[in-house]
Amino acid sequence: MKEKEFISTIKQILGSEYIGDDCAYLKDLGIVITQDSLVEGVHFKKNLITPYQLGYKSVMVNISDVSASGAKPAYLTISISLPSNIETDFIEQFYLGCQKACNNDVKIVGGDITSADKIYISVCAIGTTENRNISSRKSAKIGQKVIVSGIHGSSGAGLKLLLSGKKEPEKFIKSHLEPQAQTEFGKYLGENVKELYAAMDTSDGLMDALSTIANESGVLLDIDFEKIPYDKEITQFQNWQDLILFGGEDYQIVATVPQDINIGTTIGEVKQGLGVNLKINNNYIFYDKQMVEKSIYNHFSN
Amino acid sequence: MKEKEFISTIKQILGSEYIGDDCAYLKDLGIVITQDSLVEGVHFKKNLITPYQLGYKSVMVNISDVSASGAKPAYLTISISLPSNIETDFIEQFYLGCQKACNNDVKIVGGDITSADKIYISVCAIGTTENRNISSRKSAKIGQKVIVSGIHGSSGAGLKLLLSGKKEPEKFIKSHLEPQAQTEFGKYLGENVKELYAAMDTSDGLMDALSTIANESGVLLDIDFEKIPYDKEITQFQNWQDLILFGGEDYQIVATVPQDINIGTTIGEVKQGLGVNLKINNNYIFYDKQMVEKSIYNHFSN
Repeated sequence: MKEKEFISTIKQILGSEYIGDDCAYLKDLGIVITQDSLVEGVHFKKNLITPYQLGYKSVMVNISDVSASGAKPAYLTISISLPSNIETDFIEQFYLGCQKACNNDVKIVGGDITSADKIYISVCAIGTTENRNISSRKSAKIGQKVIVSGIHGSSGAGLKLLLSGKKEPEKFIKSHLEPQAQTEFGKYLGENVKELYAAMDTSDGLMDALSTIANESGVLLDIDFEKIPYDKEITQFQNWQDLILFGGEDYQIVATVPQDINIGTTIGEVKQGLGVNLKINNNYIFYDKQMVEKSIYNHFSN
Repeated sequence: MKEKEFISTIKQILGSEYIGDDCAYLKDLGIVITQDSLVEGVHFKKNLITPYQLGYKSVMVNISDVSASGAKPAYLTISISLPSNIETDFIEQFYLGCQKACNNDVKIVGGDITSADKIYISVCAIGTTENRNISSRKSAKIGQKVIVSGIHGSSGAGLKLLLSGKKEPEKFIKSHLEPQAQTEFGKYLGENVKELYAAMDTSDGLMDALSTIANESGVLLDIDFEKIPYDKEITQFQNWQDLILFGGEDYQIVATVPQDINIGTTIGEVKQGLGVNLKINNNYIFYDKQMVEKSIYNHFSN
């Protein structure tokens, strides 16, 4: 899996203590920073998303990462590269979508615009950390509980519908095209958790986030599938349990927090061990790192 | 010229006071932020630049923007999208180049890596503003002098050589492939200029920077071509004066500063009027905005 190999090479060269979490925490400046890209043909297909939705999503995915860190999303820069036949209307709709995702809370302060063969978007987001406790995927602690901010699987189900040309149930498609960053949930954790804690958004899937936290923290996450919230209509899809576990792009937050934190849905416990232990269909399946990596979406296999 | 039209549309939608300068100055956080992209086939050709040089340049162009703002380059995130046949060796060389450009002063703290048809790089840079006076292209003032940090034209000459398959004089090719950000020059201005001042790097050419400062500030820049420093060997190139004025990618800084600032080379004065008045070959040529725009490299015409 080249992406992971590349990241390991980069870590070796840079030796940076910052690389690992979605957001880098720059304590001296009181900010977190994150950058995420969307590439036409890889992360989206032009005929399945409107320019407005594309702008919305480009911004939202970065606000989601900042929110999961526990910081307050504050500023953005947007770099966009476009084929030369793109019209002004596209730009207008794209930035209206960006602005919608900013929701009057986050300011777009810069970026650049260049030409390219295909559409490339790269957004950089800054969050402020004043009076916030910043999470790290390395910080899960035995005895904490595992919580999620909301339902999983809907975005993956929506993508399935879109790819097969179906338009119903519309709510799943909406989940995929207009996901919501869990800013309030992240704020609550940032302001209320008083010890080290782990948190990530589930952009690459719930199981990916659970496995990453488990392996980076050196703990076992004991998860009960029955407790994971999902839309009951998802059971009409083939392999619906896989959509919930591996579907991705729900942009919820998964976190390990002290037992007295009272937000979200508890789906499991942090225990001694390494990996994810999933209770599902009255069985236990143990997922080590390799097993999860094999199962999830690999950017470089597409 | 679509790029300018797009930017005007974006400004209209966002109504942001930050958009205009290469760096956005976030006073509440004590930082500036900038983002710049390099796209294969648009900003570079794979066969004319090594992965090491590409990494170096991607980082350097952003450090250059931060330096021109008067801030201290501090942190970077790097987003890179790559064809799936790219080898680990490319990544290694690319990041070694990035690290070289960081010169132990700037830390790479994050970013992402995804697949794409072509190579696409977007770097976000943060500079700190403590004890620094931050420039703006809107702040040139009548009575100030116009200074440059160094020679112009060499990078454009180097690109000409590369495109025609020539390898000599090597110094021009090196200027194009390994330009230096003027960090010390920017530091001097940031620490020593005690009034509002304009500054920009000359990434898109000296005349572009002069014209932008003139038009954004509402002043006339009276420039004497004879005073612009350049490598004397450039006179062997056809249209060498155009290389100096419009060549681009020299990554020097041009600034308007009080008369008592003692750094760089003075090439002109800030006067009442609007545009750039160039004394060249014993003539005066007046460049208004449209004339400069017609003359310079247009990303969208390539």
